Amino acid sequence: MTAFTLLATSGSARRGSLRLTHGVVETPQFMPVGTGGTVKALTPRDLRELGAQIILANTYHLWLRPGRETLVALGGLHRFMAWDRPILTDSGGFQVFSLESRRTLDDDGVTFRSHLDGSAHRFTPEGVVAFQEALGVDVAMALDVCVKQPATDEAVEASVRRTTLWARRAAAAWQHGPTALFGIVQGGTDERQRARSVAEITALDFPGYAIGGLSVGETRDEMVRVARSTAALLPADRPRYLMGVGTVRDLIAAIDCGIDMFDCVYPTRAGRHGRAITRGGEFNVRNAAFGRDARPLDPDCACAVCATHSRAYLSHLFRSDELLGLHLLSYHNLAVLAALMHDARAAIAAGRWDEFRDTIVEGVAR
Amino acid sequence: MTAFTLLATSGSARRGSLRLTHGVVETPQFMPVGTGGTVKALTPRDLRELGAQIILANTYHLWLRPGRETLVALGGLHRFMAWDRPILTDSGGFQVFSLESRRTLDDDGVTFRSHLDGSAHRFTPEGVVAFQEALGVDVAMALDVCVKQPATDEAVEASVRRTTLWARRAAAAWQHGPTALFGIVQGGTDERQRARSVAEITALDFPGYAIGGLSVGETRDEMVRVARSTAALLPADRPRYLMGVGTVRDLIAAIDCGIDMFDCVYPTRAGRHGRAITRGGEFNVRNAAFGRDARPLDPDCACAVCATHSRAYLSHLFRSDELLGLHLLSYHNLAVLAALMHDARAAIAAGRWDEFRDTIVEGVAR
Repeated sequence: MTAFTLLATSGSARRGSLRLTHGVVETPQFMPVGTGGTVKALTPRDLRELGAQIILANTYHLWLRPGRETLVALGGLHRFMAWDRPILTDSGGFQVFSLESRRTLDDDGVTFRSHLDGSAHRFTPEGVVAFQEALGVDVAMALDVCVKQPATDEAVEASVRRTTLWARRAAAAWQHGPTALFGIVQGGTDERQRARSVAEITALDFPGYAIGGLSVGETRDEMVRVARSTAALLPADRPRYLMGVGTVRDLIAAIDCGIDMFDCVYPTRAGRHGRAITRGGEFNVRNAAFGRDARPLDPDCACAVCATHSRAYLSHLFRSDELLGLHLLSYHNLAVLAALMHDARAAIAAGRWDEFRDTIVEGVAR
Repeated sequence: MTAFTLLATSGSARRGSLRLTHGVVETPQFMPVGTGGTVKALTPRDLRELGAQIILANTYHLWLRPGRETLVALGGLHRFMAWDRPILTDSGGFQVFSLESRRTLDDDGVTFRSHLDGSAHRFTPEGVVAFQEALGVDVAMALDVCVKQPATDEAVEASVRRTTLWARRAAAAWQHGPTALFGIVQGGTDERQRARSVAEITALDFPGYAIGGLSVGETRDEMVRVARSTAALLPADRPRYLMGVGTVRDLIAAIDCGIDMFDCVYPTRAGRHGRAITRGGEFNVRNAAFGRDARPLDPDCACAVCATHSRAYLSHLFRSDELLGLHLLSYHNLAVLAALMHDARAAIAAGRWDEFRDTIVEGVAR
């Protein structure tokens, strides 16, 4: 069902194509985050216009609300949210990290106390695969244990051990149907633990691999170092997904590590806070300097927002707490990352990745 | 510049066409409200799709933020908000009512203390016309004195007297350029004061007339009675605009009074509160009954939201406080009113208004 084709490489960057049940994903690809079955403030049509080929949703959040029965009764997650292109769901492993105070962990699984009503929810590797398969998503993620940084050696070792234990059970539970299952590599910032995790997880022969446990408190240099060394150990014929990365310079660095897929709440969250992304950096549209600025958010952006609206109008909307501002800036920010991925794919295909990378990195630093 | 053509009548309902600087408005017409230069949660493209032919903005709010200088520097309100069809701006007279505690009134004008920062802003009939002309809107409204109900005879008399005084000054200040100027009739629920106001305001020969001072605390029966008797006194060859009316049954009643134009925050505000409008009434999508309801919001609605999303999905979005819900329900609610106006126009043109009216009224009551 899932087929990854490596189309080209340029330096250490990869240009690929991932065939999933609901369509083909060109890589490198950034996945907009729709945690609760909606990419915040954007319609499915907006996402199609933005060229999104795959979006991300979250098992923990959908499990709690609206819940499996509702999602199944409504025909699965695609029909529920009216999105007919691929969907990848994270497993709840990130919430092991982000909701540390609301969960208890043991070798068999994790129990969350709902952030909504305090009710208990037991997540096991098998249950989480079954949930994602019931939703009919294109890519399910195996339940993992994401550990925050800085972490003790013991904590990293425990997370690697449990992640492998759970990945084996997830692989055994997986139906090999329309939903693909990706394994997740952990190991914190410890290269030896990363290497061990890669060996144990890739031994299970998943159709794709994620690098988890980064963007969780380590420095940026550590993140890039670990992503690079870990990616180098992953099989070349499978897609590589770096979880939680999404700024312009981090995406460029990660593509340079040979990574193919990314997700992050950053572009939409920044947009809801009035921050406009450009390849050269970000700025807050509320700033007084933009009050009468007739230029588009980003003169180099071809998106519908930049073709239509001025910085002054966006500034007005945010200063007035107008909902339209949240929509327009979320749209623009995703457009910037989509165009960045598009141009990165073209540069890799043309064999001029290093030049493209250096141009972007210089632009960010300027 | 402004030309109103009465195309057909059926019973007391009117089918007309109003030519303005930025386009033609078919009447009866409902004007979505974009107080601060944005119809909340909707893009200009959404509004075009919804068939909106004219939208409303507000002098008081735009005066305070972003202010005249910014709006002029950005090329006027149309360019500022990227809307190329007609715009009508209310004069600030409604804020004489709604911001009673923040204003002082005298024969020369009204001084508001800004609800944003407490700063003082002096509105005179001449200044308000000049502001709206500087913005380049299609229809400016004369500054009036809107009085809340129930009101004493003295308060009603004073509001009629000042409204006429100010209308004369507005008419004298008006440039007769691309911005048309409409007069506003006051008089509370007092038929004699209404008749006096109509006589005094229509003597000034405005290209259109609004009935103000309704939907401000009086009963619905009083509203319809006054709208009917006042409309009957207005010249047949000018458009009639009933300010602040927007529910399905009030719109039908008002069209039946011979009124042509309407505005109300109701459809978008209800939408932001999770209330879906249909011709048969409204319901709150958060209601548990809709949690697994696969039907569209309104099976009789042809809008993009009803073509795409289920009640269950809308219910999920509102229970999860997701921004997309505010957008989708605002869109749908405006679509219902736009379709109602479309069908009303067709019914009047076909000479079967009474039948159409009765069908809608029975549907609402059911």
